[in-house]
Amino acid sequence: MRDIHWKPDKNSVIPLHQQIYDYLKGKIINGEWTVGTKIPTQRSLAQQFEVNRSTIVYALEGLIADGLLQSKVGSGTEVLNNTWSLLTSMPPPDWKSYVNSGIYKPNIDIIQEINRSEADPTVIRLGTGELSPELLPNEQMLKIFQDTQKENLSLGYVEPKGRFSLRQKVSEYLRAKGIVASPESILIVSGGLQALQLISIGLLERGATILHETPSYLNSVHVFQSAGMNLLGVPLDQEGVIFEKIEQLKRQHRAALLYTIPTFHNPTGIVMSEQRRQELLKVCQKAALPIIEDDVYSDLWFDSPPPLPLKSQDTQGNVLYIGSVSKILSPGLRIGWIVGPEPVIDRLADIKMQTDYGSSSLSQYAVEKWLSNGLFTDYAKRIRTELRKRRDFTVHILEKYFSNFATWSIPKGGFYIWLKLTTNASTRKLFELALREKILLNPGLIYDKLDDDHLRISYSYASFEQLERGLIRLSELIAHHTPKLR
Amino acid sequence: MRDIHWKPDKNSVIPLHQQIYDYLKGKIINGEWTVGTKIPTQRSLAQQFEVNRSTIVYALEGLIADGLLQSKVGSGTEVLNNTWSLLTSMPPPDWKSYVNSGIYKPNIDIIQEINRSEADPTVIRLGTGELSPELLPNEQMLKIFQDTQKENLSLGYVEPKGRFSLRQKVSEYLRAKGIVASPESILIVSGGLQALQLISIGLLERGATILHETPSYLNSVHVFQSAGMNLLGVPLDQEGVIFEKIEQLKRQHRAALLYTIPTFHNPTGIVMSEQRRQELLKVCQKAALPIIEDDVYSDLWFDSPPPLPLKSQDTQGNVLYIGSVSKILSPGLRIGWIVGPEPVIDRLADIKMQTDYGSSSLSQYAVEKWLSNGLFTDYAKRIRTELRKRRDFTVHILEKYFSNFATWSIPKGGFYIWLKLTTNASTRKLFELALREKILLNPGLIYDKLDDDHLRISYSYASFEQLERGLIRLSELIAHHTPKLR
Ligand SMILES: Cc1ncc(COP(=O)(O)O)c(C=O)c1O
Ligand SMILES: Cc1ncc(COP(=O)(O)O)c(C=O)c1O
Repeated sequence: MRDIHWKPDKNSVIPLHQQIYDYLKGKIINGEWTVGTKIPTQRSLAQQFEVNRSTIVYALEGLIADGLLQSKVGSGTEVLNNTWSLLTSMPPPDWKSYVNSGIYKPNIDIIQEINRSEADPTVIRLGTGELSPELLPNEQMLKIFQDTQKENLSLGYVEPKGRFSLRQKVSEYLRAKGIVASPESILIVSGGLQALQLISIGLLERGATILHETPSYLNSVHVFQSAGMNLLGVPLDQEGVIFEKIEQLKRQHRAALLYTIPTFHNPTGIVMSEQRRQELLKVCQKAALPIIEDDVYSDLWFDSPPPLPLKSQDTQGNVLYIGSVSKILSPGLRIGWIVGPEPVIDRLADIKMQTDYGSSSLSQYAVEKWLSNGLFTDYAKRIRTELRKRRDFTVHILEKYFSNFATWSIPKGGFYIWLKLTTNASTRKLFELALREKILLNPGLIYDKLDDDHLRISYSYASFEQLERGLIRLSELIAHHTPKLR
Repeated sequence: MRDIHWKPDKNSVIPLHQQIYDYLKGKIINGEWTVGTKIPTQRSLAQQFEVNRSTIVYALEGLIADGLLQSKVGSGTEVLNNTWSLLTSMPPPDWKSYVNSGIYKPNIDIIQEINRSEADPTVIRLGTGELSPELLPNEQMLKIFQDTQKENLSLGYVEPKGRFSLRQKVSEYLRAKGIVASPESILIVSGGLQALQLISIGLLERGATILHETPSYLNSVHVFQSAGMNLLGVPLDQEGVIFEKIEQLKRQHRAALLYTIPTFHNPTGIVMSEQRRQELLKVCQKAALPIIEDDVYSDLWFDSPPPLPLKSQDTQGNVLYIGSVSKILSPGLRIGWIVGPEPVIDRLADIKMQTDYGSSSLSQYAVEKWLSNGLFTDYAKRIRTELRKRRDFTVHILEKYFSNFATWSIPKGGFYIWLKLTTNASTRKLFELALREKILLNPGLIYDKLDDDHLRISYSYASFEQLERGLIRLSELIAHHTPKLR
């Protein structure tokens, strides 16, 4: 609804209000805006169509006179009839009740707002967890297809666990992380998020409880809650998740799983220490509590590689391990993997077949080629160097402009700086304020709903120039508006 | 579990049984086969590893002596311990209970068996609903990437409804089918199956009832049942689904939706007549029963185009329309679309973001290029011609070898002949018998669980030579085994 791309033609002989009237009427007549649909506000239509608000009012009045729209005091304008319902007096289907009765809950408002704002190219995105377009390997990606013999491409449905030759490459790639996994215990998925989705509907009962670090990426996605599960946060210190209470929490809440991001944690950037890893594994083994290890950032280290994944020490099949190419190669490929005991992988593969018949074979092919012949290794080196420059640049700006009212740790890899404001400013309010200036932030509440004093700053996405301009402006906003932001 | 690709090395100095012992032990030690895992039968291991059964027995005895495996009378061999659990006596996680308690149900056995058999390249697939690899446009697909400027590729996360320029192309493509849909009311999905999955979790309550034709493709997938919905079949005649009882069924069962495949119906090949379309639309409008129109085959006509989709006459937003490139261009791309009222599309886009952050941007890019410059139109012509040859060839063989014990209609498009055996033979039993001879069939019960006398024959997948050989052998099986097949 809010992603209209059409604009009236200013060079046309047809008056603007008439063009807009025709456009909106078309939407209603074609059933795209069904009876009961709330249409965008006059303000946002005016903005979208780049016309005066009076032009919009004029067009809307026409539609109201036609009996197609009605405006309700306090709740905007909505579709009252379409020309066909006027003619036939047939009841339209009540889509609103369908939309409201779905099993899955809508994304939280702020996430939807972020998703929408990301579509606006003029916005400076200071929190986006994604490589900057300028870092993505478009040229090498095309070269992969240019070097391909037509016999080697395969465009048919893929076998349930994913392309076998890709799983072999993933198996080799994981070996360097100390993980021994044969292709049969690897499932190719459409990114780490889908891995979580499959686990939620494939391995857990409704009402099950998932333990996770607080704050956590997991709070920003809805997979588990939408499938009827509960999340329960466990505190985190500089060495990673605190394990002492886990066994007790498991018993009290009959927890089904522990979800953790041990390496370059999202959003805090923390790396779980070697010792903590061992202790955590032991505690979870003792409690027979399986672990989901989300390891999508581990290739993005700056000075020295992080400790090996938990999975590398998991001889009991206690860990389900998740990887993805999104954070280093390209999120658009939508390729990730789950590694775990074979019966579990078999089950998840069956569910994957039920929901989408497998991941894109073009993407699978591309990732296989990336993982061949050292291509990925060389590329990863370059990305690490670039990201490190961005981290240094960003930390430098923070030191210069934020020292008086924020604290942070310097991340050793990954994308994020977990900035804590010490001025008592509400980061939720700061989000709204900044967005009006076209600066998009990721406030702490996305990762912990009780948090109102952190921002997740990402140095991966915005350009250097945007990082500088955006952060400086942000520091001004905080400084000038502090009373308002409380 | 049943998709092991490893084989012992026959040229090695290490004895075969030792290699197998080491391989299986590795799986147990690495936690890929957790405690309680049932390992494949001796027979299937012998087959997989291409060794005598005695070699397998020898290797397994070693593992049993180690205390790692145990064989239980009547229920095969399973993992008893792994070396670590022997050492530490820690309880392994009880993955079996996780696998059994997931919300989603496993695919029905026969579908799982078909999925697995499809991985065997020596099997002749007489029922597979997919274009033959030789028909897939590998060369043109590569050319698309070869002709691409690196600036035009986009490898980042895509906006919620999918690449805008692709949605524009889809909008134009749909216009030729009489469907007026602006890009905002189109959602790009990972194939038609995912469209159903999103509808199931996004628009319906648990316990909702879906009406559909009997037989139907819908019975072969589990999306609705897995999300807790019920399916209810409505009979079909040569003009399409019979609509007289729909209003009553809706009332009695408080049905939420009608799912229909009006054009080149899967599995019967039936095309809903123009008149039936109008009547159905009217009935459903009157009953305020939304329709899901699954239209993935409509480009595959032989003599003349089929009637326009229901959606083209839907001025009330009563129809959710599903399309896909799988059946004509390439299933591996995993690209399809849903078209419907904007509030519904907005909702489904939000759910899609929650489950996989969008479809592969490589695939979206490729489909956009296909839909540009008439490339797709020319290609579609070629595929229609090829498929028509295959249909003629197959009908010819059926006439020659099946006239005595089967009846069928000649399809005017699509992939399928719905073959009815008149010998009282059970097609379920025939499925087993044929599979032993490496002929893979799709028996009627997949599409209607009470059906035991139909086969869905597909002329799209197997080569001409395989079609001929497979069908002749099938006719012999039926003729020779009829008493056994009752
Ligand atoms: C910790 C973590 N896991 C998983 C994902 C999902 O990424 P994708 O689905 O693109 O692989 C993200 C992305 O933000 C993430 O931060
Ligand atoms: C009627 C129908 N709808 C949808 C699909 C799903 O195909 P895909 O998900 O590949 O688009 C199929 C495939 O067999 C089908 O026959």
